[in-house]
Amino acid sequence: MAVRALVFDVFGTLVDWRTPVARAFRSSGAPGDAAELADDWRGRYVPILLEVNAGKRPWADLDELHRATLHALLAERGIDLPAGERSRLVEAWHRLDAWPDVPGGLAHLRRQRVTGALSNGHMSLLVDLARHAGLRFDCLLPAELAGAYKPAPAVYLMGARLLRLQPAEVMLVAAHPADLAAARAAGLRTAFVDRPLEYGPGSPPREDPDADLSVESLDELAEALRR
Amino acid sequence: MAVRALVFDVFGTLVDWRTPVARAFRSSGAPGDAAELADDWRGRYVPILLEVNAGKRPWADLDELHRATLHALLAERGIDLPAGERSRLVEAWHRLDAWPDVPGGLAHLRRQRVTGALSNGHMSLLVDLARHAGLRFDCLLPAELAGAYKPAPAVYLMGARLLRLQPAEVMLVAAHPADLAAARAAGLRTAFVDRPLEYGPGSPPREDPDADLSVESLDELAEALRR
Repeated sequence: MAVRALVFDVFGTLVDWRTPVARAFRSSGAPGDAAELADDWRGRYVPILLEVNAGKRPWADLDELHRATLHALLAERGIDLPAGERSRLVEAWHRLDAWPDVPGGLAHLRRQRVTGALSNGHMSLLVDLARHAGLRFDCLLPAELAGAYKPAPAVYLMGARLLRLQPAEVMLVAAHPADLAAARAAGLRTAFVDRPLEYGPGSPPREDPDADLSVESLDELAEALRR
Repeated sequence: MAVRALVFDVFGTLVDWRTPVARAFRSSGAPGDAAELADDWRGRYVPILLEVNAGKRPWADLDELHRATLHALLAERGIDLPAGERSRLVEAWHRLDAWPDVPGGLAHLRRQRVTGALSNGHMSLLVDLARHAGLRFDCLLPAELAGAYKPAPAVYLMGARLLRLQPAEVMLVAAHPADLAAARAAGLRTAFVDRPLEYGPGSPPREDPDADLSVESLDELAEALRR
């Protein structure tokens, strides 16, 4: 079955969250290694999403969840930041920068296929991010439209349903093997894009041998899909 | 309260449905005046949406509703068209042409404000239409996300909620006074854009004295919003 639409994970796959979030920690006045604080914050992301999916925490959007995990992080470290600084940190996730290949690569892919952002970010966050980073999609498909967060199957299926496609006609493009595995379990095709700098220069290497395609840039993906 | 986002009605406001749908009737082999058939089909649009909103008809997307109204129109006139031709007519609503001011005007407005399509068309129809007509929005906000059709208040409120804005921070741009009145009743700001050719050269004149702004093109709207 032909791939008729490409849906993209956003944080880490299309945009670098670590550099801007570390920068925001630096300017917040929080003591400590700003990059390490960014990594710690990001590390609390999947666990809290899973709490929501499991019904152990009421539905909340990514701003609210980022706020909750930030409070926990600061409390554990005994760091006291004023409310305004906390809000600026939460807002930093709305203004992340695209990896260098992304604006051009997305445009390239959009000439071939329908494109969408399939992200755990909510609609307004994705709007801010796409405007800031110069990302052009045909549509935004935030997880909030499914009432669940990835890796819940409902999110991937929501994407296919809103595009009026079979899951096998939709390919998820992501840098995260767990996201890709969940998409496959829901019937989607998958493309792994390597982002060796997501966690900085010492990022652990990743690969996804089960993905339909593995690439190092969106232009390489466009070439592979043309074949 | 400042207008922070512009949401656009699509059919008739941004794109000319009549010329391409009449063209599709002409090439379908249906006998009669193709423009009159297009007008008749379009005339059955609001009534069937209201049936859905009233719970008298189960939820169906615009393709399904267009198909139902086309069948009724053809049956009443004793016109027999093959299934393939009927499908091509339904598909014609996915490939409508922008009014001349629209691609440039939308780009102009998008530099000023967040923009979205707030349409009764479903997501995949809006994706096709935006790609075909060269329309760039920050996001698509199809009525299906509210489980109701305009003029139900839920649709306008869904737009504001997904953008994380108060209704009064959102302005609906539309050529149809009834759409604008319903948006105002839901708390949105409104801009009337005159489309004197929506029903061809003899279109009945329209105006909306209650709209915050009344303009004849999207560039004029951008100028008015800059003041």
